[in-house]
Amino acid sequence: MTAKPLNDLLNWRYATKKMDPTKAVPQEKVDAIIEAIRMSPTSRGTQPFEVFVVTNSGIRSKIAEAAGGQTQITDGSHTLVFAAWDNYTAERIDEVVDLNVEAHGDLPMLHAYYDNLKSNYVPRNADVNYAHAARQAYIALGIALVAAAEQEIDSTPMEGFSPDAVDAILGLKERGLRSVVLMPLGYRDEAGDWLAPMDRVRKTRDTIVTEVN
Amino acid sequence: MTAKPLNDLLNWRYATKKMDPTKAVPQEKVDAIIEAIRMSPTSRGTQPFEVFVVTNSGIRSKIAEAAGGQTQITDGSHTLVFAAWDNYTAERIDEVVDLNVEAHGDLPMLHAYYDNLKSNYVPRNADVNYAHAARQAYIALGIALVAAAEQEIDSTPMEGFSPDAVDAILGLKERGLRSVVLMPLGYRDEAGDWLAPMDRVRKTRDTIVTEVN
Repeated sequence: MTAKPLNDLLNWRYATKKMDPTKAVPQEKVDAIIEAIRMSPTSRGTQPFEVFVVTNSGIRSKIAEAAGGQTQITDGSHTLVFAAWDNYTAERIDEVVDLNVEAHGDLPMLHAYYDNLKSNYVPRNADVNYAHAARQAYIALGIALVAAAEQEIDSTPMEGFSPDAVDAILGLKERGLRSVVLMPLGYRDEAGDWLAPMDRVRKTRDTIVTEVN
Repeated sequence: MTAKPLNDLLNWRYATKKMDPTKAVPQEKVDAIIEAIRMSPTSRGTQPFEVFVVTNSGIRSKIAEAAGGQTQITDGSHTLVFAAWDNYTAERIDEVVDLNVEAHGDLPMLHAYYDNLKSNYVPRNADVNYAHAARQAYIALGIALVAAAEQEIDSTPMEGFSPDAVDAILGLKERGLRSVVLMPLGYRDEAGDWLAPMDRVRKTRDTIVTEVN
Protein backbone atom coordinates (compact mmCIF):
# COMPACT_ATOMS: atom_id res chain seq x y z
CA MET A 1 0.00 0.00 0.00
CA THR A 2 1.44 3.39 -1.01
CA ALA A 3 1.30 6.02 1.70
CA LYS A 4 -1.12 8.86 0.96
CA PRO A 5 -0.89 12.52 1.90
CA LEU A 6 -2.93 13.42 4.98
CA ASN A 7 -5.04 15.78 2.94
CA ASP A 8 -6.16 12.93 0.65
CA LEU A 9 -7.10 10.85 3.67
CA LEU A 10 -9.14 13.68 5.19
CA ASN A 11 -10.96 14.15 1.91
CA TRP A 12 -11.63 10.43 1.44
CA ARG A 13 -13.13 9.80 4.86
CA TYR A 14 -16.60 10.82 5.99
CA ALA A 15 -18.87 9.90 8.86
CA THR A 16 -20.31 6.82 7.22
CA LYS A 17 -24.04 6.50 7.82
CA LYS A 18 -24.58 3.06 6.31
CA MET A 19 -22.11 0.19 6.45
CA ASP A 20 -22.21 -2.94 4.30
CA PRO A 21 -23.10 -5.78 6.69
CA THR A 22 -21.58 -8.41 4.38
CA LYS A 23 -18.00 -7.16 4.68
CA ALA A 24 -15.68 -7.51 7.67
CA VAL A 25 -12.54 -5.46 8.30
CA PRO A 26 -9.43 -7.69 8.22
CA GLN A 27 -7.58 -8.02 11.51
CA GLU A 28 -4.37 -6.43 10.23
CA LYS A 29 -6.25 -3.25 9.36
CA VAL A 30 -7.85 -3.13 12.80
CA ASP A 31 -4.38 -3.68 14.26
CA ALA A 32 -2.98 -0.73 12.29
CA ILE A 33 -5.73 1.54 13.60
CA ILE A 34 -5.13 0.37 17.17
CA GLU A 35 -1.40 0.95 16.78
CA ALA A 36 -2.08 4.56 15.74
CA ILE A 37 -4.25 4.98 18.85
CA ARG A 38 -1.53 3.47 21.00
CA MET A 39 1.08 5.85 19.57
CA SER A 40 -1.16 8.93 19.88
CA PRO A 41 0.23 11.69 22.07
CA THR A 42 -1.48 12.41 25.37
CA SER A 43 -0.85 14.80 28.23
CA ARG A 44 2.49 13.82 29.81
CA GLY A 45 2.21 10.45 28.14
CA THR A 46 -0.41 9.29 30.61
CA GLN A 47 -2.60 7.64 27.94
CA PRO A 48 -5.55 8.03 30.32
CA PHE A 49 -8.03 5.89 28.41
CA GLU A 50 -8.58 2.37 27.17
CA VAL A 51 -10.07 1.06 23.96
CA PHE A 52 -12.57 -1.77 23.73
CA VAL A 53 -12.65 -3.52 20.37
CA VAL A 54 -16.09 -5.04 20.18
CA THR A 55 -16.81 -7.70 17.57
CA ASN A 56 -19.30 -9.78 19.58
CA SER A 57 -22.58 -9.23 17.78
CA GLY A 58 -24.81 -9.58 20.82
CA ILE A 59 -22.86 -6.89 22.61
CA ARG A 60 -22.78 -4.70 19.51
CA SER A 61 -26.56 -5.00 19.33
CA LYS A 62 -26.83 -3.81 22.91
CA ILE A 63 -24.47 -0.91 22.22
CA ALA A 64 -26.50 0.00 19.11
CA GLU A 65 -29.62 0.05 21.26
CA ALA A 66 -27.86 2.44 23.65
CA ALA A 67 -27.04 4.60 20.61
CA GLY A 68 -30.53 5.16 19.28
CA GLY A 69 -30.31 2.16 16.97
CA GLN A 70 -27.52 3.55 14.80
CA THR A 71 -26.92 0.72 12.36
CA GLN A 72 -23.21 1.26 11.72
CA ILE A 73 -22.52 -0.44 15.04
CA THR A 74 -24.13 -3.69 13.92
CA ASP A 75 -23.53 -3.43 10.15
CA GLY A 76 -19.82 -2.70 10.60
CA SER A 77 -17.62 -5.54 11.84
CA HIS A 78 -15.87 -3.85 14.76
CA THR A 79 -16.85 -1.07 17.12
CA LEU A 80 -14.14 0.75 19.04
CA VAL A 81 -15.23 2.17 22.38
CA PHE A 82 -12.93 4.83 23.80
CA ALA A 83 -13.24 4.80 27.59
CA ALA A 84 -11.44 7.42 29.67
CA TRP A 85 -10.19 7.13 33.23
CA ASP A 86 -12.87 8.29 35.65
CA ASN A 87 -10.13 10.02 37.65
CA TYR A 88 -6.38 10.47 37.94
CA THR A 89 -5.02 8.52 40.89
CA ALA A 90 -1.52 8.21 42.35
CA GLU A 91 -1.54 4.51 41.39
CA ARG A 92 -2.39 5.23 37.76
CA ILE A 93 0.30 7.89 37.49
CA ASP A 94 2.82 5.62 39.21
CA GLU A 95 2.29 3.03 36.49
CA VAL A 96 3.22 5.69 33.92
CA VAL A 97 6.32 6.55 35.96
CA ASP A 98 7.30 2.86 36.09
CA LEU A 99 7.01 2.61 32.32
CA ASN A 100 9.22 5.67 31.86
CA VAL A 101 11.79 4.43 34.38
CA GLU A 102 11.87 1.12 32.53
CA ALA A 103 12.57 2.93 29.24
CA HIS A 104 14.92 5.68 30.39
CA GLY A 105 16.31 4.63 33.76
CA ASP A 106 15.52 5.84 37.26
CA LEU A 107 16.12 9.53 36.52
CA PRO A 108 15.32 12.05 39.27
CA MET A 109 13.84 14.40 36.65
CA LEU A 110 11.26 11.77 35.70
CA HIS A 111 10.12 11.50 39.28
CA ALA A 112 10.04 15.28 39.67
CA TYR A 113 8.00 15.59 36.46
CA TYR A 114 5.36 13.11 37.59
CA ASP A 115 5.39 14.13 41.26
CA ASN A 116 4.41 17.56 40.02
CA LEU A 117 1.63 16.00 37.95
CA LYS A 118 0.39 13.98 40.91
CA SER A 119 0.27 16.98 43.21
CA ASN A 120 -1.72 18.90 40.59
CA TYR A 121 -4.13 16.22 39.39
CA VAL A 122 -4.82 13.83 42.25
CA PRO A 123 -6.45 16.43 44.54
CA ARG A 124 -8.70 17.71 41.75
CA ASN A 125 -12.37 16.87 41.47
CA ALA A 126 -12.92 13.55 39.66
CA ASP A 127 -15.15 15.23 37.07
CA VAL A 128 -12.42 17.71 36.17
CA ASN A 129 -9.94 14.85 35.81
CA TYR A 130 -12.35 12.77 33.75
CA ALA A 131 -12.98 15.74 31.44
CA HIS A 132 -9.23 16.07 30.95
CA ALA A 133 -8.79 12.35 30.30
CA ALA A 134 -11.69 12.39 27.82
CA ARG A 135 -10.00 15.17 25.84
CA GLN A 136 -6.90 12.99 25.50
CA ALA A 137 -9.11 10.25 24.06
CA TYR A 138 -10.28 12.75 21.47
CA ILE A 139 -6.69 13.32 20.31
CA ALA A 140 -6.52 9.58 19.69
CA LEU A 141 -9.95 9.63 18.05
CA GLY A 142 -8.75 12.22 15.54
CA ILE A 143 -5.69 10.15 14.75
CA ALA A 144 -7.72 6.93 14.59
CA LEU A 145 -10.00 8.49 11.98
CA VAL A 146 -6.92 9.24 9.87
CA ALA A 147 -5.57 5.73 10.49
CA ALA A 148 -8.84 4.16 9.34
CA ALA A 149 -8.79 6.24 6.15
CA GLU A 150 -5.18 5.20 5.53
CA GLN A 151 -6.35 1.58 5.74
CA GLU A 152 -9.26 2.42 3.40
CA ILE A 153 -11.64 1.48 6.17
CA ASP A 154 -14.80 3.46 6.78
CA SER A 155 -15.63 4.69 10.23
CA THR A 156 -18.09 6.87 12.10
CA PRO A 157 -17.17 8.96 15.12
CA MET A 158 -20.25 8.65 17.32
CA GLU A 159 -21.21 10.67 20.38
CA GLY A 160 -24.96 10.08 20.31
CA PHE A 161 -25.27 7.28 22.85
CA SER A 162 -26.00 6.82 26.52
CA PRO A 163 -22.62 6.63 28.27
CA ASP A 164 -24.20 5.08 31.35
CA ALA A 165 -25.77 2.32 29.26
CA VAL A 166 -22.52 1.58 27.41
CA ASP A 167 -20.59 1.64 30.70
CA ALA A 168 -23.01 -0.96 32.06
CA ILE A 169 -22.84 -3.16 28.93
CA LEU A 170 -19.02 -3.30 29.06
CA GLY A 171 -18.62 -3.20 32.85
CA LEU A 172 -16.60 0.00 32.63
CA LYS A 173 -17.54 1.55 35.98
CA GLU A 174 -15.99 -1.34 37.91
CA ARG A 175 -12.77 -0.73 35.97
CA GLY A 176 -12.71 2.98 36.75
CA LEU A 177 -13.58 3.92 33.18
CA ARG A 178 -16.29 5.96 31.47
CA SER A 179 -17.22 5.62 27.81
CA VAL A 180 -16.42 8.74 25.79
CA VAL A 181 -16.95 8.09 22.11
CA LEU A 182 -17.69 5.18 19.77
CA MET A 183 -16.07 4.43 16.43
CA PRO A 184 -17.65 1.67 14.35
CA LEU A 185 -15.44 0.30 11.57
CA GLY A 186 -16.61 -1.25 8.33
CA TYR A 187 -17.15 -0.63 4.64
CA ARG A 188 -19.52 2.00 3.32
CA ASP A 189 -22.70 0.86 1.60
CA GLU A 190 -22.55 3.48 -1.16
CA ALA A 191 -26.06 2.87 -2.43
CA GLY A 192 -27.68 2.94 1.01
CA ASP A 193 -25.80 5.90 2.48
CA TRP A 194 -27.45 9.29 1.94
CA LEU A 195 -24.24 11.05 2.99
CA ALA A 196 -21.91 9.11 0.68
CA PRO A 197 -22.55 11.13 -2.49
CA MET A 198 -22.39 14.51 -0.73
CA ASP A 199 -19.19 16.53 -0.80
CA ARG A 200 -17.56 17.40 2.49
CA VAL A 201 -18.83 20.74 3.78
CA ARG A 202 -16.27 22.85 5.62
CA LYS A 203 -16.08 26.49 6.61
CA THR A 204 -13.68 28.69 4.70
CA ARG A 205 -10.26 29.25 6.16
CA ASP A 206 -11.16 32.89 6.84
CA THR A 207 -14.13 31.83 8.95
CA ILE A 208 -12.06 29.78 11.38
CA VAL A 209 -8.57 31.27 11.23
CA THR A 210 -7.32 34.59 12.57
CA GLU A 211 -3.73 35.63 11.91
CA VAL A 212 -2.13 37.60 14.72
CA ASN A 213 0.92 39.11 13.04
CA MET B 1 7.68 15.40 -0.70
CA THR B 2 6.81 11.71 -0.63
CA ALA B 3 3.84 10.85 1.57
CA LYS B 4 4.75 8.88 4.67
CA PRO B 5 2.77 6.20 6.48
CA LEU B 6 0.92 7.52 9.55
CA ASN B 7 2.91 5.22 11.78
CA ASP B 8 6.19 6.85 10.67
CA LEU B 9 4.76 10.29 11.38
CA LEU B 10 3.63 9.25 14.87
CA ASN B 11 7.07 7.86 15.61
CA TRP B 12 8.88 10.91 14.25
CA ARG B 13 6.98 13.51 16.24
CA TYR B 14 7.38 14.23 19.94
CA ALA B 15 6.34 17.04 22.26
CA THR B 16 9.31 19.25 21.49
CA LYS B 17 10.69 20.91 24.61
CA LYS B 18 13.23 23.21 22.97
CA MET B 19 12.80 24.92 19.61
CA ASP B 20 15.57 26.52 17.56
CA PRO B 21 14.85 30.28 17.67
CA THR B 22 16.84 30.91 14.48
CA LYS B 23 14.49 28.95 12.20
CA ALA B 24 11.02 29.95 11.03
CA VAL B 25 8.40 27.62 9.60
CA PRO B 26 7.64 28.49 5.95
CA GLN B 27 4.15 29.77 5.29
CA GLU B 28 3.19 26.89 2.98
CA LYS B 29 3.86 24.41 5.77
CA VAL B 30 1.74 26.40 8.20
CA ASP B 31 -0.96 26.51 5.52
CA ALA B 32 -0.87 22.72 5.15
CA ILE B 33 -1.32 22.28 8.91
CA ILE B 34 -4.21 24.75 8.94
CA GLU B 35 -5.84 22.97 6.01
CA ALA B 36 -5.74 19.70 7.96
CA ILE B 37 -7.40 21.46 10.90
CA ARG B 38 -10.03 22.91 8.59
CA MET B 39 -10.79 19.48 7.13
CA SER B 40 -10.90 17.76 10.52
CA PRO B 41 -14.19 16.08 11.35
CA THR B 42 -16.34 17.56 14.10
CA SER B 43 -19.72 16.73 15.58
CA ARG B 44 -22.32 17.29 12.84
CA GLY B 45 -19.79 19.39 10.97
CA THR B 46 -20.24 22.30 13.34
CA GLN B 47 -16.49 23.07 13.56
CA PRO B 48 -17.19 24.75 16.92
CA PHE B 49 -13.79 26.35 17.37
CA GLU B 50 -11.44 28.86 15.79
CA VAL B 51 -7.68 28.88 15.42
CA PHE B 52 -5.45 31.86 16.08
CA VAL B 53 -2.12 31.75 14.29
CA VAL B 54 0.14 33.95 16.36
CA THR B 55 3.43 35.13 14.91
CA ASN B 56 3.59 38.55 16.61
CA SER B 57 6.49 38.23 19.02
CA GLY B 58 5.13 40.62 21.64
CA ILE B 59 1.91 38.65 21.83
CA ARG B 60 3.78 35.35 21.86
CA SER B 61 5.82 36.63 24.79
CA LYS B 62 2.63 37.42 26.68
CA ILE B 63 1.21 33.97 25.88
CA ALA B 64 4.46 32.37 27.03
CA GLU B 65 4.16 34.28 30.29
CA ALA B 66 0.63 32.90 30.69
CA ALA B 67 2.11 29.43 30.10
CA GLY B 68 4.70 29.39 32.85
CA GLY B 69 7.41 30.71 30.55
CA GLN B 70 7.46 27.71 28.23
CA THR B 71 10.05 28.72 25.64
CA GLN B 72 8.65 26.84 22.65
CA ILE B 73 6.07 29.63 22.28
CA THR B 74 8.74 32.27 21.73
CA ASP B 75 11.50 30.09 20.20
CA GLY B 76 9.14 28.59 17.63
CA SER B 77 7.92 30.87 14.83
CA HIS B 78 4.15 30.32 15.09
CA THR B 79 1.84 29.43 17.94
CA LEU B 80 -1.57 28.02 17.14
CA VAL B 81 -4.24 28.75 19.74
CA PHE B 82 -7.31 26.52 19.53
CA ALA B 83 -10.29 28.44 20.93
CA ALA B 84 -13.64 26.71 21.30
CA TRP B 85 -17.10 28.24 21.23
CA ASP B 86 -18.18 29.23 24.71
CA ASN B 87 -21.65 27.93 23.88
CA TYR B 88 -23.83 26.57 21.08
CA THR B 89 -26.33 29.17 19.93
CA ALA B 90 -29.10 29.09 17.34
CA GLU B 91 -27.19 31.70 15.31
CA ARG B 92 -24.00 29.64 15.23
CA ILE B 93 -25.86 26.51 14.19
CA ASP B 94 -27.80 28.46 11.56
CA GLU B 95 -24.52 29.47 9.94
CA VAL B 96 -23.64 25.78 9.65
CA VAL B 97 -27.06 25.11 8.11
CA ASP B 98 -26.52 27.92 5.59
CA LEU B 99 -23.19 26.44 4.58
CA ASN B 100 -24.77 23.04 4.04
CA VAL B 101 -27.71 24.48 2.11
CA GLU B 102 -25.24 26.33 -0.11
CA ALA B 103 -23.40 23.07 -0.84
CA HIS B 104 -26.29 20.62 -1.11
CA GLY B 105 -29.42 22.68 -1.72
CA ASP B 106 -32.29 23.54 0.57
CA LEU B 107 -33.08 19.96 1.59
CA PRO B 108 -35.73 19.42 4.27
CA MET B 109 -33.55 16.66 5.81
CA LEU B 110 -30.75 19.18 6.40
CA HIS B 111 -33.10 21.43 8.32
CA ALA B 112 -34.49 18.50 10.29
CA TYR B 113 -30.97 17.34 11.14
CA TYR B 114 -29.90 20.71 12.50
CA ASP B 115 -33.26 21.59 14.08
CA ASN B 116 -32.79 18.46 16.14
CA LEU B 117 -29.29 19.60 17.05
CA LYS B 118 -30.55 23.03 18.03
CA SER B 119 -33.29 21.67 20.24
CA ASN B 120 -30.75 19.44 22.00
CA TYR B 121 -27.80 21.81 22.36
CA VAL B 122 -29.12 25.35 22.68
CA PRO B 123 -31.02 24.77 25.95
CA ARG B 124 -28.03 23.06 27.58
CA ASN B 125 -25.80 24.72 30.12
CA ALA B 126 -23.04 26.79 28.47
CA ASP B 127 -20.34 24.83 30.30
CA VAL B 128 -21.64 21.53 28.95
CA ASN B 129 -21.67 23.01 25.45
CA TYR B 130 -18.20 24.47 25.82
CA ALA B 131 -16.88 21.10 27.04
CA HIS B 132 -18.36 19.48 23.94
CA ALA B 133 -16.91 22.13 21.63
CA ALA B 134 -13.50 21.79 23.28
CA ARG B 135 -13.50 18.05 22.60
CA GLN B 136 -14.04 18.77 18.90
CA ALA B 137 -10.98 21.02 18.98
CA TYR B 138 -9.02 18.07 20.34
CA ILE B 139 -9.93 15.97 17.29
CA ALA B 140 -8.38 18.73 15.19
CA LEU B 141 -5.41 18.94 17.56
CA GLY B 142 -4.67 15.24 17.03
CA ILE B 143 -4.87 15.67 13.28
CA ALA B 144 -2.81 18.89 13.39
CA LEU B 145 -0.02 17.03 15.21
CA VAL B 146 0.02 14.49 12.37
CA ALA B 147 -0.08 17.30 9.79
CA ALA B 148 2.90 19.03 11.40
CA ALA B 149 4.89 15.79 11.36
CA GLU B 150 3.99 15.29 7.71
CA GLN B 151 5.47 18.73 7.03
CA GLU B 152 8.53 17.80 9.11
CA ILE B 153 7.65 20.59 11.49
CA ASP B 154 8.06 20.17 15.22
CA SER B 155 5.25 21.04 17.55
CA THR B 156 4.21 20.84 21.18
CA PRO B 157 0.64 20.27 22.32
CA MET B 158 0.39 22.48 25.40
CA GLU B 159 -2.28 22.53 28.08
CA GLY B 160 -0.26 24.11 30.87
CA PHE B 161 -1.38 27.72 30.60
CA SER B 162 -3.93 30.06 32.09
CA PRO B 163 -6.94 30.04 29.74
CA ASP B 164 -8.26 33.26 31.28
CA ALA B 165 -4.97 35.03 30.62
CA VAL B 166 -4.76 33.79 27.01
CA ASP B 167 -8.42 34.73 26.46
CA ALA B 168 -7.60 38.25 27.65
CA ILE B 169 -4.45 38.53 25.50
CA LEU B 170 -6.33 37.58 22.32
CA GLY B 171 -9.68 39.15 23.20
CA LEU B 172 -11.43 35.80 22.96
CA LYS B 173 -14.19 36.38 25.49
CA GLU B 174 -15.68 39.21 23.44
CA ARG B 175 -15.79 36.84 20.48
CA GLY B 176 -17.58 34.12 22.44
CA LEU B 177 -14.50 31.90 22.50
CA ARG B 178 -12.40 30.22 25.18
CA SER B 179 -8.82 29.05 24.67
CA VAL B 180 -8.47 25.27 24.86
CA VAL B 181 -4.97 24.22 23.88
CA LEU B 182 -1.81 25.76 22.39
CA MET B 183 0.40 24.32 19.69
CA PRO B 184 3.70 26.09 19.05
CA LEU B 185 5.36 25.25 15.72
CA GLY B 186 9.05 25.35 14.97
CA TYR B 187 12.18 23.28 14.59
CA ARG B 188 13.62 21.17 17.38
CA ASP B 189 16.89 22.26 18.95
CA GLU B 190 18.30 18.74 19.21
CA ALA B 191 21.21 19.70 21.44
CA GLY B 192 19.11 21.75 23.86
CA ASP B 193 16.12 19.43 24.14
CA TRP B 194 16.32 16.85 26.95
CA LEU B 195 13.41 14.92 25.45
CA ALA B 196 14.78 14.76 21.88
CA PRO B 197 17.12 11.78 22.42
CA MET B 198 14.56 9.77 24.40
CA ASP B 199 12.50 7.10 22.69
CA ARG B 200 8.74 7.44 22.76
CA VAL B 201 7.29 5.66 25.78
CA ARG B 202 3.94 4.00 25.22
CA LYS B 203 1.93 1.40 27.08
CA THR B 204 1.71 -2.05 25.55
CA ARG B 205 -1.29 -2.86 23.44
CA ASP B 206 -2.52 -5.28 26.11
CA THR B 207 -2.54 -2.52 28.69
CA ILE B 208 -4.92 -0.29 26.77
CA VAL B 209 -6.90 -2.64 24.54
CA THR B 210 -9.58 -5.14 25.50
CA GLU B 211 -11.07 -7.38 22.81
CA VAL B 212 -14.74 -8.17 23.29
CA ASN B 213 -15.26 -11.14 20.99
